[in-house]
Amino acid sequence: MASSFTVSRASAGSVTATALNNAIQSERLSSSASPAGFGFSKFAGLKLRSNGKVACSSRSSSQRRLRSSAPKVVRAAAVETLEAISTGLIEKSINAIRFLAIDAVEKANSGHPGLPMGCAPMGHILYDEVMRYNPKNPYWFNRDRFVLSAGHGCMLQYALLYLAGYDSVKEEDLKGFRQWGSKTPGHPENFETPGVEVTTGPLGQGIANAVGLALAEKHLAARYNKPDSTIVDHYTYCIVGDGCQMEGISNEACSLAGHWGLGKLIAFYDDNHISIDGDTEIAFTEDVTTRFEGLGWHTIWVKNGNTGYDEIRAAIEEAKSVKDRPTLIKVTTTIGFGSPNKANSYSVHGSALGAKEVDATRQNLGWPHPPFHVPEEVKSHWSRHAARGASFEAEWSSKLAEHEKKYPEEAAEFKALISGKLPEGWDKALPAYTTESPADATRILSQQCLNALAKVLPGLLGGSADLASSNMTLLKMFGDFQKDTPAERNVRFGVREHSMGAICNGIAHHGSGLIPYCATFFVFTDYMRAAIRISALSEAGVIYVMTHDSIGLGEDGPTHQPIEHLASFRAMPNVLMLRPADGNETAGAYKVAVLNRKRPSILALSRQKLPHLAGSSIEGVEKGGYTISCNASNNKPDVILMGTGSELEIAEKAAVTLRNEGKAVRVVSFVCWELFEEQTPEYKESVLPAAVAARVSVEAGSTFGWERYLGSKGKAVGIDRFGASAPIGILYKEFGLTAENVVATAKQVLA
Amino acid sequence: MASSFTVSRASAGSVTATALNNAIQSERLSSSASPAGFGFSKFAGLKLRSNGKVACSSRSSSQRRLRSSAPKVVRAAAVETLEAISTGLIEKSINAIRFLAIDAVEKANSGHPGLPMGCAPMGHILYDEVMRYNPKNPYWFNRDRFVLSAGHGCMLQYALLYLAGYDSVKEEDLKGFRQWGSKTPGHPENFETPGVEVTTGPLGQGIANAVGLALAEKHLAARYNKPDSTIVDHYTYCIVGDGCQMEGISNEACSLAGHWGLGKLIAFYDDNHISIDGDTEIAFTEDVTTRFEGLGWHTIWVKNGNTGYDEIRAAIEEAKSVKDRPTLIKVTTTIGFGSPNKANSYSVHGSALGAKEVDATRQNLGWPHPPFHVPEEVKSHWSRHAARGASFEAEWSSKLAEHEKKYPEEAAEFKALISGKLPEGWDKALPAYTTESPADATRILSQQCLNALAKVLPGLLGGSADLASSNMTLLKMFGDFQKDTPAERNVRFGVREHSMGAICNGIAHHGSGLIPYCATFFVFTDYMRAAIRISALSEAGVIYVMTHDSIGLGEDGPTHQPIEHLASFRAMPNVLMLRPADGNETAGAYKVAVLNRKRPSILALSRQKLPHLAGSSIEGVEKGGYTISCNASNNKPDVILMGTGSELEIAEKAAVTLRNEGKAVRVVSFVCWELFEEQTPEYKESVLPAAVAARVSVEAGSTFGWERYLGSKGKAVGIDRFGASAPIGILYKEFGLTAENVVATAKQVLA
Repeated sequence: MASSFTVSRASAGSVTATALNNAIQSERLSSSASPAGFGFSKFAGLKLRSNGKVACSSRSSSQRRLRSSAPKVVRAAAVETLEAISTGLIEKSINAIRFLAIDAVEKANSGHPGLPMGCAPMGHILYDEVMRYNPKNPYWFNRDRFVLSAGHGCMLQYALLYLAGYDSVKEEDLKGFRQWGSKTPGHPENFETPGVEVTTGPLGQGIANAVGLALAEKHLAARYNKPDSTIVDHYTYCIVGDGCQMEGISNEACSLAGHWGLGKLIAFYDDNHISIDGDTEIAFTEDVTTRFEGLGWHTIWVKNGNTGYDEIRAAIEEAKSVKDRPTLIKVTTTIGFGSPNKANSYSVHGSALGAKEVDATRQNLGWPHPPFHVPEEVKSHWSRHAARGASFEAEWSSKLAEHEKKYPEEAAEFKALISGKLPEGWDKALPAYTTESPADATRILSQQCLNALAKVLPGLLGGSADLASSNMTLLKMFGDFQKDTPAERNVRFGVREHSMGAICNGIAHHGSGLIPYCATFFVFTDYMRAAIRISALSEAGVIYVMTHDSIGLGEDGPTHQPIEHLASFRAMPNVLMLRPADGNETAGAYKVAVLNRKRPSILALSRQKLPHLAGSSIEGVEKGGYTISCNASNNKPDVILMGTGSELEIAEKAAVTLRNEGKAVRVVSFVCWELFEEQTPEYKESVLPAAVAARVSVEAGSTFGWERYLGSKGKAVGIDRFGASAPIGILYKEFGLTAENVVATAKQVLA
Repeated sequence: MASSFTVSRASAGSVTATALNNAIQSERLSSSASPAGFGFSKFAGLKLRSNGKVACSSRSSSQRRLRSSAPKVVRAAAVETLEAISTGLIEKSINAIRFLAIDAVEKANSGHPGLPMGCAPMGHILYDEVMRYNPKNPYWFNRDRFVLSAGHGCMLQYALLYLAGYDSVKEEDLKGFRQWGSKTPGHPENFETPGVEVTTGPLGQGIANAVGLALAEKHLAARYNKPDSTIVDHYTYCIVGDGCQMEGISNEACSLAGHWGLGKLIAFYDDNHISIDGDTEIAFTEDVTTRFEGLGWHTIWVKNGNTGYDEIRAAIEEAKSVKDRPTLIKVTTTIGFGSPNKANSYSVHGSALGAKEVDATRQNLGWPHPPFHVPEEVKSHWSRHAARGASFEAEWSSKLAEHEKKYPEEAAEFKALISGKLPEGWDKALPAYTTESPADATRILSQQCLNALAKVLPGLLGGSADLASSNMTLLKMFGDFQKDTPAERNVRFGVREHSMGAICNGIAHHGSGLIPYCATFFVFTDYMRAAIRISALSEAGVIYVMTHDSIGLGEDGPTHQPIEHLASFRAMPNVLMLRPADGNETAGAYKVAVLNRKRPSILALSRQKLPHLAGSSIEGVEKGGYTISCNASNNKPDVILMGTGSELEIAEKAAVTLRNEGKAVRVVSFVCWELFEEQTPEYKESVLPAAVAARVSVEAGSTFGWERYLGSKGKAVGIDRFGASAPIGILYKEFGLTAENVVATAKQVLA
């Protein structure tokens, strides 16, 4: 499955930067790891001359054994004088990218120049030759997507967006790299910089986002393309680094990409052998290519990623020709390429080069220009992208118009979907419940909502991390999204929570009206927390369906029983943490979740059956906290009982007892703290009057944070230790989550 | 690298349960996935007869192509009548294991019978024939370790511990499976059940724990064995399921195991093709064996894990013979083996079989015994383990005594280490600081502590997830723990946070006095939260060195800036969340962390320099919260300013201003909330007098939870949104983390 490309343009009499870098890498692989990282000093005598010529020793291919086990790979023979290359426009353009990155990092005195210097060639070929996009409309639907999974190298992407003519990155933005308020933050952020598709930096997540983008393309293509009309048709490109490859999430996501046969996903593995701690030999000696073959990918090795432009081009062509599998193009590069003293070392990874080394690099690469200067011929070359992009989009628009004529109904659905607008009256589909409705687990009620919504929301798709039958997340009218059935809407993620979340982020950021949901046990949000945080930060309205939300799951025991999870998400910015108590609250939670397309919602749902409460409502949920029942004649009940989810029933039972004893008792559902905080002071006072200090909260989870609503006199009934393995009834009793205990606690606070 | 074992003991005239299961699996692989999961109905006509004989169709080996790409594998030819097998003692013993699991799950009406039924043969061979342990001393140092990574199958392990004679699991414990207070919870918990090494259930973590156990063995062997005397010498065995294989953490950990060449780690992959959602074909079609070869493992395929006992034995022998690499033994089994109607389906994974199917299984496997009954001959066979185990330990003890004679000094160190006791006066090594000491980042001060402690704590070892030079975690007097230098103490985890945490849990639970620490940026605790939770639950005193603990890290921006993390860990049970402010507090944090061997400590440390405060102290840290400075003449200051870490300096500056304006101001360090909560009411009142309502907190993180100490009148200065990319000075100002803002806020609460 592996193949490689070599471009042989031999020159006589001189050995060049390319050969030097190959020599350095070969030599490095044979040196032993040291605590202080890679010993660069070995190559002190092998610096590039200012004319790019060096003398270099021969190297043994066996030294690369560990990473070169793929048998079909042939060593690159490309040798070319640096002078010859630098005369070419492409070389100038690539060096322009390198120096924009070098200069921006230097000015900020902060950032990561190494990756942009090494990946400039593949970046250039992608943005200048291969990708179809419209810089004047970064949100054009059918654009090729690009994800820089190695997000620390963001100056590569900013430089490319700048050259390509995106309005989001101007010269002043490059000069404002990593400064307050700039469009060029320290890692790529889609919500700051149009042209950036997703937010990356936390390693491994970008490639999973890319899998989500490619899934979205494959799904929509299957649903809306016709044999005679193709309106969904783009590639997803991604650059991953050694760090991304080490992270488990990337293996999860790539296993799924292979399983799904995402043939239009093409990932470049920037194989530069350097990470922050030095040579990757100290911690990363696996054979990545073999692993990816095990994952069902097509693999290619470009051995000269520094100057082997034709190798890179041919690899992309081959990748495109393989339609039934994603492709990993391993591109061996030199981090910090061109820096005579820092290339190929960790010191160029995450720090400015320093003025002296910047000068030396300018001299070495023959770049006489001042900082941030792009030669006119390079500017002129790139300037064609405005027209080119406009014509791509126009071509697509006319295709869509043709399509519309032939398939008016489907085209209307498609256009409505990608507009991102929710269909008129969609929320009418949500089920309604009365106290007569049979008691049910909120995970079952959630399934009713999901299935009702799937009929009216053509963009709703998702699934579970191998717990569909426990999370109750199957859409009954649809089959599985699989390699050969990509139009279906049930996604089978396998036991891969972290990539599930990140894939959903990718689906959400495809920008095509898809509404991804995903599911696991609430406790296993721990496995995917980094992805949920990116949902929140990057404004992805993913719906997290999290069942088995407390010790109420019973016998599985403390490894499976969430305790601190509600509190932990209430502390996270831009997340809606919802814990509905019954049918109407579950419907309300879905209404909120669907409406919030720019923040994720987490629904904590019960395994156990719960009754439908008389006072619950969708409208109440939309306020976040509201009165479920109250027998006070004014806004001064004797005591306020507060709860969420499955414990609201307990609060209601306790209220009955207390009322029977003559107390005026209010029961408040705090289904979503974040929404409650957004209400007016008047509304808040109407629910939680300041004058009523006697307050009790009841929730099967950590009491951490409840002081906010309890005030200094109130008391929390909750669980501040780990759970235990036992049937639910025993657990609730042993942990004091009973109406009796709530009554007793209320009497304490009333005393 | 792959090989396989087949045992050809052909019988004429009948096709057996083994063949049936093979046929089912082959057929299944050729069927397409359906949303409802695996369509078992296809085999409705292929049930076992009560005598175990069935007619079964031929199968095509090409149907297994996806999983059988390893070229050297030969198909199993083992065919044997069930009658013949059941006459053997081994078969009886294996069936005893199966029925103990079946009966316990049935009695609890909850649990996972499928894995124990399928894995009983390998479990039996391990515990009865292969492993060296002493059931009467589960903590014997040199025992072989066993980890059930697929923890839901815990009845397998409980049955084995019971048969082997561990006091922790008696018949009544099996009958109390999954009940309140029992020693047999729903997933294996080391702190409940001696003989269980680690706590598993959350998938993928067990194999990472096993990597940690194997690392500990390799490290201690390298340090303490002598050419003529071996005192550290055990294997680590692990059973992983399909779910474990899908989780990214397992790939991370196994990549490291391959890198480190952990030749005494032997993992059994229970290749049963079924997970909760049905056939693994719907989400997991990668070639696991090829992936593991890419990870540098030796691989073996046992094709008949149901009855191929000799295959299993030979595979273990081969695995032991490969000393330079870990081995993955892929064991193809039938989940729920023996159940005529539920074997090989998801329905046997996580539910009781039901009385009718239990009866049918008894009939099918020829098991006439009542529930929980173990035949005398089986009991008698297993009874030898008490003596066998005692002799293993005695043999080792005399080896150790010999060793002690020859190498008294090293033996003394070894014995002291594995006693788990900290050396007398170790804490005297902690550095002390004065206000004259140069300002420094707490991450640098942490490095000073680590390096000071490494000299006096022979068990201290650890490292970073590729951020050693940022986290400042290198032990300068040691080299890297690597394949060929395993006696060294700097562990290079690569960018693999999740497995790093779980590997450290394994090291801690090796029970040999090792004190593991690990490090990354604080925000990336999100990647390893599930492992940290297991540290807390399973009582592993791992030290988490988490630097770059706030927006103070600056330009890397919001993807790298923790906000909610302090709050999220304060909500987690049994974790010490420490955020020291300067040198003495950092030393105090290490004192607390080292002393707490049964709960993990998380140290949140600054990237930026901080001054040393006059009032800080180790003793203060041990109380969790304490007065740093106070100019009130009694316990009634006008206002209390509270802070942690880098913001304590800001609180102190604000106090100076307020004092200059005539106010009596107390500054309190809340370095560890959990420790403060453990103090007496009197102490707490002495720090936070109830009468003083004017309180302000300042912390560069979420204000969530601060209400606990602020009371209803206090105000929090903090950050309840995501951060931004900019230099630290700008960020602190823009987010209001300034002395001026604290002063202004104090005036508000005083007004």
